[in-house]
Amino acid sequence: MHRTRVRVVEDALDANNTIARANREDFDRHGVAVVNLMSAPGAGKTTLLEAVLADPPSGIRVGVLEGDVQGSYDSDRIASLHVPVAQLNTDPGFGGECHLDANMVRSALPSLPLEEIDLLVIENVGNLVCPAEFRVGEDVRAMVCSVTEGEDKPLKYPLMFRSCELVVVNKLDLLPHLDVDLGRLEYNVDAVNPGVRQMLVSARSGEGVDEFRQWLAQTAAADRPQAVV
Amino acid sequence: MHRTRVRVVEDALDANNTIARANREDFDRHGVAVVNLMSAPGAGKTTLLEAVLADPPSGIRVGVLEGDVQGSYDSDRIASLHVPVAQLNTDPGFGGECHLDANMVRSALPSLPLEEIDLLVIENVGNLVCPAEFRVGEDVRAMVCSVTEGEDKPLKYPLMFRSCELVVVNKLDLLPHLDVDLGRLEYNVDAVNPGVRQMLVSARSGEGVDEFRQWLAQTAAADRPQAVV
Repeated sequence: MHRTRVRVVEDALDANNTIARANREDFDRHGVAVVNLMSAPGAGKTTLLEAVLADPPSGIRVGVLEGDVQGSYDSDRIASLHVPVAQLNTDPGFGGECHLDANMVRSALPSLPLEEIDLLVIENVGNLVCPAEFRVGEDVRAMVCSVTEGEDKPLKYPLMFRSCELVVVNKLDLLPHLDVDLGRLEYNVDAVNPGVRQMLVSARSGEGVDEFRQWLAQTAAADRPQAVV
Repeated sequence: MHRTRVRVVEDALDANNTIARANREDFDRHGVAVVNLMSAPGAGKTTLLEAVLADPPSGIRVGVLEGDVQGSYDSDRIASLHVPVAQLNTDPGFGGECHLDANMVRSALPSLPLEEIDLLVIENVGNLVCPAEFRVGEDVRAMVCSVTEGEDKPLKYPLMFRSCELVVVNKLDLLPHLDVDLGRLEYNVDAVNPGVRQMLVSARSGEGVDEFRQWLAQTAAADRPQAVV
């Protein structure tokens, strides 16, 4: 009799990764590139998306999946820009889950018009710890770090900064009013994730927003089957 | 034969509460009042403590327990003010735990000179979700909310705002440079936690810091056995 041993997948992160891979296969089948966008609460993820989507990258159809503990404040903001958007709430738990996981995203797939978009931005729950631990099926990870949070955040929340392909340093317009050393912040980002791409942005003033728009367009293009060499 | 049924305590939060009560009994036995201080990353908890502890409340001996995923940046800052401080790191987990729990705080008790302090401030990990779910043995809970985070945070993270006896609205000095409606923020705080005390503060300029100092002193005094009527 043929017998094989299969290790029991009992680890929650293993299970999450299994579902994340299934999500990614679904996204790939539809030719949808996926960005997992993370940050601390109030760093400006939604404002940055609003700034970009008011004038979307040319030729790229963008959809958004909003993750929040409660409410639909962010998806309301995005929907007003006539962008396809779905809202995930994590609050069935006691105080709400502090992150999106692959299974939550999977449950949202039927609400997303995957055949009509090229790029899906998943705006995660505002939190610098657990979202970095859970893959959701994304191609790339980006985070927004506001200069108001201080220079030390990369050193205090290293996994988040380390797990991202892009760090958007936001609220640059506030820098003159803060005791924050931008060079020190950039140095600390590079210390925990050497060579990671950093972008200096003010979603409010518009400074640097076009660079993020281009990055989104490149991310979408790189994921298209026809773009593969 | 006498037989009783004891419900098996298998819920993680039940277990946490059991240890939190043990912590609180230890704090009470030493006459130490305990504040659990929470916020999003970079809201200014440590800067607020620095501002208060540079000129501590008269007659109150304060100690601090710092909770961070990694590093000792905050405890170094507090120690430079000659305040007894211990550092808890939550990073033995994969990406680090996103909150303090009662057992972590219990493990720090031997590092704290409880017989030499009247008030312990526990600075939790920067996170607006899970810290609110885990009691650690505190008498009262306070949170710091920076105006830079926007007016909507009470609506998006209601358990945190609801579970606190005090909401310190910080970085008031930045308000002229933001598109944030302070009245709307205060309204939203009150909407999720009606009547909760709110304090307007700029830890950086010093505005409102004395009110927080007095609140700490009153919290310490209220917990002293001799102050009980």
